[in-house]
Amino acid sequence: MEKNMRLILIGFGVVGQGFAEILRDKAAQLTQEQGFSAQIIGVVTASKGTLYRPEGLDIDALLGAAESGSFASYPEQKGLKRDLSADAMIEGRAADALVEVSPTDLDTAEPALSFCHLALENGMHLVLANKGPVALDYASLNAKATEYNLQMRYEATVMAGTPVISLAGDALAGCEIRSARGILNGTTNYILTQMEGGMSYSEALAQAQALGFAESDPSGDVEGWDAAAKVLILCQSLFGRPMRMDDLDVSGISAIDSADIAEAQSAGERYKLIAQAAPDGGEVRARRIPLSDPLASVGGATNAITLETDLLGAVTLIGAGAGKLATGSAILTDLLAISSSQ
Amino acid sequence: MEKNMRLILIGFGVVGQGFAEILRDKAAQLTQEQGFSAQIIGVVTASKGTLYRPEGLDIDALLGAAESGSFASYPEQKGLKRDLSADAMIEGRAADALVEVSPTDLDTAEPALSFCHLALENGMHLVLANKGPVALDYASLNAKATEYNLQMRYEATVMAGTPVISLAGDALAGCEIRSARGILNGTTNYILTQMEGGMSYSEALAQAQALGFAESDPSGDVEGWDAAAKVLILCQSLFGRPMRMDDLDVSGISAIDSADIAEAQSAGERYKLIAQAAPDGGEVRARRIPLSDPLASVGGATNAITLETDLLGAVTLIGAGAGKLATGSAILTDLLAISSSQ
Repeated sequence: MEKNMRLILIGFGVVGQGFAEILRDKAAQLTQEQGFSAQIIGVVTASKGTLYRPEGLDIDALLGAAESGSFASYPEQKGLKRDLSADAMIEGRAADALVEVSPTDLDTAEPALSFCHLALENGMHLVLANKGPVALDYASLNAKATEYNLQMRYEATVMAGTPVISLAGDALAGCEIRSARGILNGTTNYILTQMEGGMSYSEALAQAQALGFAESDPSGDVEGWDAAAKVLILCQSLFGRPMRMDDLDVSGISAIDSADIAEAQSAGERYKLIAQAAPDGGEVRARRIPLSDPLASVGGATNAITLETDLLGAVTLIGAGAGKLATGSAILTDLLAISSSQ
Repeated sequence: MEKNMRLILIGFGVVGQGFAEILRDKAAQLTQEQGFSAQIIGVVTASKGTLYRPEGLDIDALLGAAESGSFASYPEQKGLKRDLSADAMIEGRAADALVEVSPTDLDTAEPALSFCHLALENGMHLVLANKGPVALDYASLNAKATEYNLQMRYEATVMAGTPVISLAGDALAGCEIRSARGILNGTTNYILTQMEGGMSYSEALAQAQALGFAESDPSGDVEGWDAAAKVLILCQSLFGRPMRMDDLDVSGISAIDSADIAEAQSAGERYKLIAQAAPDGGEVRARRIPLSDPLASVGGATNAITLETDLLGAVTLIGAGAGKLATGSAILTDLLAISSSQ
């Protein structure tokens, strides 16, 4: 039995485009092997415009238009609407899921948060790569999803496609997770790794920016706020505790200099920006850890997390923490999970 | 809505007892948090006897009787039968799932394999910690499970409770797994780690036996056959290819001596018994790997696996590879997955 999911995407940047490419390239395989198909019927962006067509948009044309910088270059198609608002699209109730891939805002999570609530109220499942709504309003979104018998999935928000949310929630369902501790920000781990190789902080940061890991304003990464948002998501997802950014103890790596790195190295240790989540709180802090710690060998932009469990002891997961296809793959995995539970 | 699963256990050694303890200790929590409950209604063993009671056996009494070495000391209860055969129990159709935790036989997988087929034919789901039936007859069991709309789950057969099967099959559903490469036998990894610390092979083996990691006949571990059985399971589960032990290239660690270990160390490398699975075959072989390989830092009885994927690159999972509660927890996770999909 084939299940076709109709999707509205909010945002169409790197992650949204990566997901669309995957959907296009894997379409035949997904239909054949998993009985799954999906259509993008709407896309809403802040800068490129808006497209809506209940019969499905053409992914190649969508990617071409995105590359040109404006959806104005998307070709005319029967039934196409170019100026529908996100609210009107969602309230049209033609889609099965809202895919939120717009940029994260950690102050208000808007406008994504309002779209998420509206989508649930209109019978749509939620899949997010945008951390804001999950970090700031998990409890209320989760309650609403449960009330409407819908799913909210957000694998892509922590460690990109490396599936820590599914590992903790499904694959370790027979265990209780006691705490989580990891390297959740690739940019800072890349900078620290380069500094161990002899670069200064500013050289390493400039290289991370040149490679596209770090934003032109890198403060969200280097001051720890990106990792902190992921800690909030883990605290709520793993331990069911409502938490706010103010509840966390957050610092970054900008105060670490080459002398600190050298001192750690001579002591047989390594600086890592360690994120911790536990039932009673969380923190993000640069720490010196011994080389024997599984997290010490995680270099470059890679992410890693160790979950402490009651029955299994420590379980460590290591993988990509960023990337167009890596993050896009998590959105597909979430949609497959929703589809297979229908 | 509470779901009660009725279980027949084949085998009641370390893993079966560990699972029973978990079921007893987590009963209230599982009912409250996941709406799940389970009863053991039958236990079949080769040496302790057999117990069957459709209304459920008492777990404390069962564990006490097992400790005494014979189910003869299990107290009299209304409806209790002490001499029912496994076939008769299964054909009674009172159970929802067969839990196969008897010792692994890699030549014929019997008698477990016949019980598994009979269970599927009688409408029971399968959960296995016994590697034999999955390694030797995956394709036929899987086809029968699909035919009868039942599930066969076997998380405990590879890396004990560390959930590589679920990671590969569910949590990475949006990716294609290209290959798997790991440390899948804890006994040999423990011996190699101790040899790096200065022990001889025979001292390290004796210590592994004293600690209960290695059997009195250690050949299944040290010659690579235990890891090879896991490679067979991964080849079939991840890549859907029927494989036989003859198709694999298998060797162990018994030919490695202290001089080999020292030579690897002086070259900045480490010996590990590396198991590999790919769509076109598999192998188990002691290999020298560089310290920068994530598998190099996995010491003692710990297991680890790296999955190469199309969209996410390498994903590595590290965790316990043995243990009473670690393995028992995987059986519970499998049962929870079956229950939640009903």
